[in-house]
Amino acid sequence: MTNAKMDEGAHRFSEEERRGLYRAIYERRDVRSFFRPDEIAADVLARLLDAAHHAPSVGLMQPWRFIVIRDRHVRQTIHGIFDRARHTAAEIYTDDRRAMYDTLKLAGIIEAPINLCVACDEATIRGHGLGRQTMPETALYSTVCAVQNLWLAARAEGVGVGWVSILKVDELRGALGIPEGVVPIAYLCLGYVTEFGAQPELELKGWEQRAALAGLIHFERYGATDETRAAELLSSINRKRQSEDKS
Amino acid sequence: MTNAKMDEGAHRFSEEERRGLYRAIYERRDVRSFFRPDEIAADVLARLLDAAHHAPSVGLMQPWRFIVIRDRHVRQTIHGIFDRARHTAAEIYTDDRRAMYDTLKLAGIIEAPINLCVACDEATIRGHGLGRQTMPETALYSTVCAVQNLWLAARAEGVGVGWVSILKVDELRGALGIPEGVVPIAYLCLGYVTEFGAQPELELKGWEQRAALAGLIHFERYGATDETRAAELLSSINRKRQSEDKS
Repeated sequence: MTNAKMDEGAHRFSEEERRGLYRAIYERRDVRSFFRPDEIAADVLARLLDAAHHAPSVGLMQPWRFIVIRDRHVRQTIHGIFDRARHTAAEIYTDDRRAMYDTLKLAGIIEAPINLCVACDEATIRGHGLGRQTMPETALYSTVCAVQNLWLAARAEGVGVGWVSILKVDELRGALGIPEGVVPIAYLCLGYVTEFGAQPELELKGWEQRAALAGLIHFERYGATDETRAAELLSSINRKRQSEDKS
Repeated sequence: MTNAKMDEGAHRFSEEERRGLYRAIYERRDVRSFFRPDEIAADVLARLLDAAHHAPSVGLMQPWRFIVIRDRHVRQTIHGIFDRARHTAAEIYTDDRRAMYDTLKLAGIIEAPINLCVACDEATIRGHGLGRQTMPETALYSTVCAVQNLWLAARAEGVGVGWVSILKVDELRGALGIPEGVVPIAYLCLGYVTEFGAQPELELKGWEQRAALAGLIHFERYGATDETRAAELLSSINRKRQSEDKS
């Protein structure tokens, strides 16, 4: 074993710890249907928020703000906003696709015991503007990283999360009193669930399929895809999947 | 034990698996300084890309595209773009802050063996526009979720990742041939590292400090922060930290 290999082993997690992370990544679902009404305990919610708070942020700006929503009246207002947007959005679909759209459950705003709006305070002085002169949008992206941390932590805790994007942003701002300079990034529904699907619901229902990863990999320049080279890069994963499928 | 508690236990990960996820979240770093030159094996890179590919995406759109960059000439071009932007960005800082800026190592473009540009193809038909009529920006956000999945998986594999945002986007597009309709989201440097810092580098160097989470939590409406209530919600975490600090 070379020194390089030894060092690499020193920072790598144990097999069980790595499995925990990869399970969260592969078994995380965008939950809309299976929420149970029982409360999420304070210590669990605290761990989820703290996981979000440890996301990367440009310049250590930490622009994320969390609005924890339990009040039924607030949730009913948001549900109304969602329902109007859902009806408007339906109009672009016709025939079979429209029929499929109408069967999709798209939000659990009322059923989930907690709603959480994650917003980005672009005006905060924290971080002193580092890294944002060229790409100011990285403040928004930092906030998205916080959402994804929370989503993965929730899966590990057995809590389902659904991200509702069928909302008119100005109506959402109005309902939650979100001022200018603060951008609503994600409206999430959180709760324990009766099940986590084996596949994404949109895949199970035939709305869309998983793309082949090899086609999404470009080498050195955009557009320079190479199926042979990508297949070689991904061969270890594809072998593993095939042996799992056979067993 | 009630039925609800039993069910909750059924979907929750084992203690060791949960530790793996939380370790990745808390020990992930934005790496700029400690890259080693040794190659990342194909099977490790494949797991990182596959983790990214299993991020959530609006409508199962999967808009992420990965440009894997190893070529030294390409990296030198990008480094030049970075270096010019870094000098321009320096000009807003004065006195001590400027002196501190000048000591920051802000990218490992040349030292890291792999650079990875993650871009978002907003024009893809995949997902049939579901969830994007009201919030089209969710395509970009889905791509950021892919970046965060990759970043956490990298930490578990012992691989460091640094996100470089001090780049002019039009110059980056030119260097990598990224067309209109495709948005560069993240330019990442990947490699094994000699160490992962105990704290973010910007915190260690005094650029910025970790904010108190309690102040970022609002109840029911934006602006409705409540220190007492937030402290109560977070008490389990704060107790745990205090006992760790004492031990």
